[in-house]
Amino acid sequence: MKVDGQHRRSIVAAPDARSVQVIDQRWLPHRLEIASLGDLPTVVAAIREMWVRGAPLIGVSAAYGLALQMRRDPSDASLEAAADTLVAARPTAVNLAWAVRRLQRALAVLPPAQRADRAWALAGEMADEDVAVNEAIGRHGLPLLQDIAERRGGRVDVLTHCNAGWLATVDWGTALSPIYQAQAAGLDVHVWVDETRPRNQGASLTAWELGQQGVAHTVIADNAGGHLMQQGNVDIVIVGCDRVSARGDVCNKIGTYLKALAARDNGVPFYAAMPLSTLDLTLHDGLLEIPIEERSVRELSHVSGRDAQGQVVEVQLLPDGSPAANPAFDVTPARLVTGLITERGVVPTEERALRAVAE
Amino acid sequence: MKVDGQHRRSIVAAPDARSVQVIDQRWLPHRLEIASLGDLPTVVAAIREMWVRGAPLIGVSAAYGLALQMRRDPSDASLEAAADTLVAARPTAVNLAWAVRRLQRALAVLPPAQRADRAWALAGEMADEDVAVNEAIGRHGLPLLQDIAERRGGRVDVLTHCNAGWLATVDWGTALSPIYQAQAAGLDVHVWVDETRPRNQGASLTAWELGQQGVAHTVIADNAGGHLMQQGNVDIVIVGCDRVSARGDVCNKIGTYLKALAARDNGVPFYAAMPLSTLDLTLHDGLLEIPIEERSVRELSHVSGRDAQGQVVEVQLLPDGSPAANPAFDVTPARLVTGLITERGVVPTEERALRAVAE
Repeated sequence: MKVDGQHRRSIVAAPDARSVQVIDQRWLPHRLEIASLGDLPTVVAAIREMWVRGAPLIGVSAAYGLALQMRRDPSDASLEAAADTLVAARPTAVNLAWAVRRLQRALAVLPPAQRADRAWALAGEMADEDVAVNEAIGRHGLPLLQDIAERRGGRVDVLTHCNAGWLATVDWGTALSPIYQAQAAGLDVHVWVDETRPRNQGASLTAWELGQQGVAHTVIADNAGGHLMQQGNVDIVIVGCDRVSARGDVCNKIGTYLKALAARDNGVPFYAAMPLSTLDLTLHDGLLEIPIEERSVRELSHVSGRDAQGQVVEVQLLPDGSPAANPAFDVTPARLVTGLITERGVVPTEERALRAVAE
Repeated sequence: MKVDGQHRRSIVAAPDARSVQVIDQRWLPHRLEIASLGDLPTVVAAIREMWVRGAPLIGVSAAYGLALQMRRDPSDASLEAAADTLVAARPTAVNLAWAVRRLQRALAVLPPAQRADRAWALAGEMADEDVAVNEAIGRHGLPLLQDIAERRGGRVDVLTHCNAGWLATVDWGTALSPIYQAQAAGLDVHVWVDETRPRNQGASLTAWELGQQGVAHTVIADNAGGHLMQQGNVDIVIVGCDRVSARGDVCNKIGTYLKALAARDNGVPFYAAMPLSTLDLTLHDGLLEIPIEERSVRELSHVSGRDAQGQVVEVQLLPDGSPAANPAFDVTPARLVTGLITERGVVPTEERALRAVAE
């Protein structure tokens, strides 16, 4: 997608295979900082301190981190230590562990001298795979928006929550991919962007990337979505997902469930964009079986923004001594989800259909 | 209620009848600033710039403003001009206009020389009336919490949205009044405090007043309430209301509707605390008939907090150029409201019952 009018991916491998460039997302939307990651410790820091976030982007970043380490020391001990360090950088990121361990296994069977080049190539393949999956999600989601445009005429209003855009992936994004494809297809599409407290990924990242791409959008408080649906101002909700159970329960950023309830109450279709890698067929009842990460209360008690002098500063919002709680995700029951937009097509939230598409 | 261990009302008349003291709520929760309002222009500024907010407190403040002006110039022209200025200070505050016009009519029939003393006395009566109404709301709401405590044993978890506490009234508050009475009755009560974006009244005001009163509470993002209800961590929801239709549709701070949906989906009782002055029997369908105020997008794009140096500063959250929308209220349909807690008892959301209690 575009930044300052130029196409770029969220992670770019240097031609000399000695570093990768990423956007240090901590400074968005206030500053565009490109960081060059040249060794494993820098990649680990970038993952841990959330310069990069979003499961697909974290996975690809970690793969490049492992490749950079193989360039320095391709020994078995180095491979194992690097993989462990990367997995520990974001302990709750299931995809991170999965990507790193897959790569580790592929490298372990090779002679050390071949590992660096092979790791670099595999990391590049993972990046390209992610782009292809997201492009396909957009292609399969596009008809949902085209149908609304044809049926209703005029502007198509999409509501989204958090950031499931290209900043969370390598390119296209998941939930935003159908929107970018609708824009490319000439549809008049407008996005209601949930601010997404407490980390403000909607206000900071989704608004920024839609703005850079020239997609019409309006940022709203997370509280406003229900009212907009009551007023008939939302045609469809599309969100991302972190984990989906076999029957279609969707674990996603905290607050998704409330939007699904409002969509159901107002007859608005509610879709989750789901790369099939996110489907966990070992889970059945998402509400009972998916553990919810409790994150630091500082995300709620403090917020970063740009002050009058243009500096990014952190300010405290809560009274001293007021306790806070910060569950980071919730689970939307399958009954509230109209369908899942995957790289193989739109699938209803039924176990049989989900198992079939995953085969 | 208590501030620094001492009981105080949100507005206090000076013994010499020459000024009133209010808390300048713009600085909460970071600083307790007591402002002395000694003339009409200062009172108008305090209302317009939201040093004071909440319909009951605004009404009483305006009454004292009119009384202070009568002290300076009790003429007919002065009375009329003062009333008009006060009403214009917050154009959408229905209760403000109602309180000011009522007082204006009561004074207009008196000889000018009697107006100042009478206005002061009437303002004091309005304040006492508000305290009595809120105390009664708490008394009638208390059994709802006692029932839960008896049925379930242990802690009673209440979720509330925005600030409908004593800071919005003269004392006790509306939605928080049953909670303060539960505390006084020795119940183990704990409050989930919705942050309440975009103005953060929950994080800034509700958390502060509960903390000052020693009521156990936890601040959460507005996004978190549905998840907490799914997990069985909320026993009852109690919110305030800005306007209620004859059939019981509740207009309240934006986001209330989403919590009502989640309460219904999880079998959690959902109550609105409603002084009968808030019931508008001329309205039937709240969704169609209650206009929703669209407030400045700056409430969403910027936020105030305390920086590392202890200064209260404002920072920008949104990307430059990203549009925002800020509907300030929503309407929760009567079907989602278990009951209305009034000063005359708990009333179901049925037109006949509401008309009967209002008589």
